[in-house]
Amino acid sequence: MGAHKDSFGTLDFLRDLPLFRELDACELEAIGAATIELRVTAGTALFRRDDPCDGFHVIVVGRVKLALLAPAGAEKVVGILGPGQSFGEAAMFLGKRHTLYAEALADSLLLFIRSGAMLEAIRRNPKLARRMLDEMSQRLYSLVVDIEAYTMKNATERVTGYLLAALSDDAGAGQPAEIQLAASKSVLASRLNITREHFSRILHELTQSGLIRVSGRNIRILDLARLRDHKI
Amino acid sequence: MGAHKDSFGTLDFLRDLPLFRELDACELEAIGAATIELRVTAGTALFRRDDPCDGFHVIVVGRVKLALLAPAGAEKVVGILGPGQSFGEAAMFLGKRHTLYAEALADSLLLFIRSGAMLEAIRRNPKLARRMLDEMSQRLYSLVVDIEAYTMKNATERVTGYLLAALSDDAGAGQPAEIQLAASKSVLASRLNITREHFSRILHELTQSGLIRVSGRNIRILDLARLRDHKI
Repeated sequence: MGAHKDSFGTLDFLRDLPLFRELDACELEAIGAATIELRVTAGTALFRRDDPCDGFHVIVVGRVKLALLAPAGAEKVVGILGPGQSFGEAAMFLGKRHTLYAEALADSLLLFIRSGAMLEAIRRNPKLARRMLDEMSQRLYSLVVDIEAYTMKNATERVTGYLLAALSDDAGAGQPAEIQLAASKSVLASRLNITREHFSRILHELTQSGLIRVSGRNIRILDLARLRDHKI
Repeated sequence: MGAHKDSFGTLDFLRDLPLFRELDACELEAIGAATIELRVTAGTALFRRDDPCDGFHVIVVGRVKLALLAPAGAEKVVGILGPGQSFGEAAMFLGKRHTLYAEALADSLLLFIRSGAMLEAIRRNPKLARRMLDEMSQRLYSLVVDIEAYTMKNATERVTGYLLAALSDDAGAGQPAEIQLAASKSVLASRLNITREHFSRILHELTQSGLIRVSGRNIRILDLARLRDHKI
């Protein structure tokens, strides 16, 4: 796969990212020249905790899991990312090693943008710096929402919250709407800080109440209003 | 208090903040002109969730608590900040309303820097933009560490982790070292996501084990090596 460098159109993809929308052709070329195309199969580790960080990743196709690993080998999934999303910027800016573990959840095509070119582009283009500040601020917001969920919501609220957020990601305003789980049930359970068994039990309970219907990774929302109101 | 604007030397204080170290005299003047000095007493609410955000705060003297409020009135403290630290930048960049509640824990002197001047300074000075990116990256790191503590550490590990971090903040390499708790036990317990009673029980247990001695808000570390190793 990928015999010649620009097989899928790296520059076109970069140009379409909101992050790079302010770059002129010449600046974009410089970023493109510092970009490596990575094709990985499901299960590939992209980096591990304490690995040095000299750039950041953008997902073109596929899905990536970010996780904290406990000494005993347990893991806590903190993010499940898809096309257009990026990761690793904070470690890049701080010149620190990675704190998270990143793994492809599906066969994926990623871009790896080296830190030197990125930091230089930010130094030259304040609009890019501002875009990146917005991106990092958005991520801080999301982490605060996560902390709120972990510390102040019960497991059922976290699951219904996840389903409702997935629903608003997939467009569709129709009443019986369908979503597809972004990862396996065990990965999602870890993302929601519950056991796989507890996750299944909650899905079963929501099914019994007539709020959803589950078929593999597909979940059909049967009663959106009641799902929104559902507690405990 | 504070009859004339520059009573304590706003510009000197701003100049010494790492964030503003790259600004020239003229740029610093512009920020200073957009800065309001706030003297508040302990217990004053600085902003609440859903308040509009048109700037960010820097602490000169005092202490501020950032918290999430649950519908029932419970609160989850997510940060306890002191002199030199700032808050509210993410909401400012995103032009969003606040998600957190901020309250002075002690009589405090704060600076409030209006967003217009700050965004303009960032637009003009890429070095300032880069400093702010480092700051936001650092905060993302800290939140990931928090999530790790909430989801993968038990209560005792969170308490000993807090004591060890407080110890490294206060200089002093001497073996029996002393720290002063940054807030009341109930605020700290909420920060560590445990009940006030559980927090007291853990301090009592660490005292019984001969690792610490507690006297009001002062905690003397009697055996640093064993405290580092202490689990459950």
